[in-house]
Amino acid sequence: MNEAYKQAEIAFQSNEVPVGAVITYQSQIIAKQYNETLARTDPTAHAEILAVREACQKLGTERLVECSLYVTLEPCPMCAQAISFARIKALYFGAYDPKGGGIEHGPRIFEQSTCHHKPEIWGGIQEDVNAELLQAFFAERR
Amino acid sequence: MNEAYKQAEIAFQSNEVPVGAVITYQSQIIAKQYNETLARTDPTAHAEILAVREACQKLGTERLVECSLYVTLEPCPMCAQAISFARIKALYFGAYDPKGGGIEHGPRIFEQSTCHHKPEIWGGIQEDVNAELLQAFFAERR
Repeated sequence: MNEAYKQAEIAFQSNEVPVGAVITYQSQIIAKQYNETLARTDPTAHAEILAVREACQKLGTERLVECSLYVTLEPCPMCAQAISFARIKALYFGAYDPKGGGIEHGPRIFEQSTCHHKPEIWGGIQEDVNAELLQAFFAERR
Repeated sequence: MNEAYKQAEIAFQSNEVPVGAVITYQSQIIAKQYNETLARTDPTAHAEILAVREACQKLGTERLVECSLYVTLEPCPMCAQAISFARIKALYFGAYDPKGGGIEHGPRIFEQSTCHHKPEIWGGIQEDVNAELLQAFFAERR
C-alpha cells in the first residue's frame, strides 16, 4: 500500500485525481499505475484499469488468479467489475468512497448475481493518509 | 447498429465473444470496435471500452457529451460505468444480458446514487439477430 500511495502522489503532482494502484504476484510488484484520465484523454484510465492491463501484459494472461491488487481508494463500479473479470485473488483498498465507490457503496458490484468472481477484500487500509491526499487535492480546486 | 453488428461478426471470426460497438458524433461514425479480450490479453478490452477510448482520442476530449453509442449486447457493469464517466448522450443496445448485463440487470448502474450521469437508453434493438450471433458462438464452444 505504501507503493500505491507513492503512485497516488505522482498523480497529485500531475494534477490528476490522486489514486494509485499496485498489483503483486508471488510477493513481487508486477504493475504500478496512477490515475491518468487527463493525460491520456481517457475516462477509463483509472489506476486499477491501467494496473490490470499492465499485469496481464507482464504475465501473458487475462486471468490474474494469484495476484493481489492494492489501491488507495475504494474502486468505482467500473474498476470493481474489471477486478472481477481479471479474477484478482485479493483486493486491498485505502479510503472509502461513499460518492463513487462500487464495493461498499452504490452497486456493491461483488454482491450482484451478475458478478461471477469475488476477491477477498480488505478495506480502510491506511485510510487516513489515503483520504487526506484526496481531500488536499479537492480542497486546492474549490 | 448495422455497423456494430458487422464489428461483432469480426469478433466472431476472431474467436472473441461477438460483441461490437460504434460511437457516432454529428451523425458520423467516429469509433468502431469489437471485443478483443483474447487478442489483447486484456480483460477490460470490451468493445465499448475500446470505442470510448478511440472516440476520446479522435475528439481530443474525455467527455463525449454529444455522442451516441451503439452496442450489440447490453453493456456489463464495467462498460456501463465507463459510458457514464464518458458522458455519452445516448446508448442503444441490442440483446439483453440477464447473466452479465449492468443496465437492466444486476447492479443497474445508471440507477445508483454513485452514478452521476445517465444517458438516454434504448434497449432490445435488433435483439433477435444480435442474440443469435452470441448464441451461435457459445453453441459452437459447448
